[in-house]
Amino acid sequence: MRYPLYLSRLMEALKALPGVGSKTADRYVFEMLHWPSKQLQQLAQAIDALPTMVQFCSICGCLNDDNQCLYCNAQYRDSSTLCVVASVKEVFAIEATGEYRGFYHVLGGLLSPLEGKGPEQLRIASLKERLATVEEAIIALDSTVEGDATSLFLKQQLERQGVKVSRLAFGLPLGSPLDYVDGGTLSRAMQGRRAF
Amino acid sequence: MRYPLYLSRLMEALKALPGVGSKTADRYVFEMLHWPSKQLQQLAQAIDALPTMVQFCSICGCLNDDNQCLYCNAQYRDSSTLCVVASVKEVFAIEATGEYRGFYHVLGGLLSPLEGKGPEQLRIASLKERLATVEEAIIALDSTVEGDATSLFLKQQLERQGVKVSRLAFGLPLGSPLDYVDGGTLSRAMQGRRAF
Repeated sequence: MRYPLYLSRLMEALKALPGVGSKTADRYVFEMLHWPSKQLQQLAQAIDALPTMVQFCSICGCLNDDNQCLYCNAQYRDSSTLCVVASVKEVFAIEATGEYRGFYHVLGGLLSPLEGKGPEQLRIASLKERLATVEEAIIALDSTVEGDATSLFLKQQLERQGVKVSRLAFGLPLGSPLDYVDGGTLSRAMQGRRAF
Repeated sequence: MRYPLYLSRLMEALKALPGVGSKTADRYVFEMLHWPSKQLQQLAQAIDALPTMVQFCSICGCLNDDNQCLYCNAQYRDSSTLCVVASVKEVFAIEATGEYRGFYHVLGGLLSPLEGKGPEQLRIASLKERLATVEEAIIALDSTVEGDATSLFLKQQLERQGVKVSRLAFGLPLGSPLDYVDGGTLSRAMQGRRAF
């Protein structure tokens, strides 16, 4: 398909977004053609401003807002627990539950030898430094091969420092019929059953 | 979930894209956080340039490229057929098939009384003016209620001018099992059967 150059350039740029292929990029661009120019400008400015606006907290690795960490500086947060996550987006997912009020530590990824990510590439040294004032470290990583490996590695490292280490529970996701749940999850749910 | 302002602004802007809700917008933004600033700039510039770059051909309503219509000015195209489509994106879809080498006419929408779109809002007057040199008008509109109504309306209008009017065939989409095809499509496929 031969699109005018300015359209195909925009399509190519949009295709770098996750899950966006040619069809979706086409759809986005043809929708944008109907947008008023002010709306297009707003989107362009928001994207353009991203690199200058985004700043990470030097302590926990979360996103700063107005040069202040959203969590490290909050007075009402519980400093005795530390939740270890892989990236910034998990912080927002956990915050949305309203279930946790402690501090965070963003690792910046998971151990993945195939991608050349070893312990040195993650923020593990600074995590260890923070453990002195912490009673419990909650490991909140993906339940994937990389997540499991990283969790196990962290458990060994942190327990040496005498910190209580816990990990998010495995079990049935809410609202799912039992026969749709895979065997691995079901067996972990059985192992982790609790008094009712 | 409380995001920093610059992130939520970008998320809101992205949510105007078709099929993009909060979850997808979040995903796009957190992916963009990892992009190099040059890539972000390129995307922002491509979006920002859209209103100034996009120009429509005054004759057929297709997109211009370099101030020239991609189709009206092409010497090798067959001027005796005119394909009537609702919007610019259908032109590219038809071009991609390589099956059609005539001219186009973009209506700019479909008749839709509920949305206040009557014949006056569509480019029907200019369509009629172009019919003098045309032998066949191919109506290539959606097979929806609005598409059917617009097709029927156009058929009546164009046949009065002595032009042969045809419409895209209805039938089985390629690669689909017969029992997955809905009854309406199947009955149109039966009516439209051809010598084999």
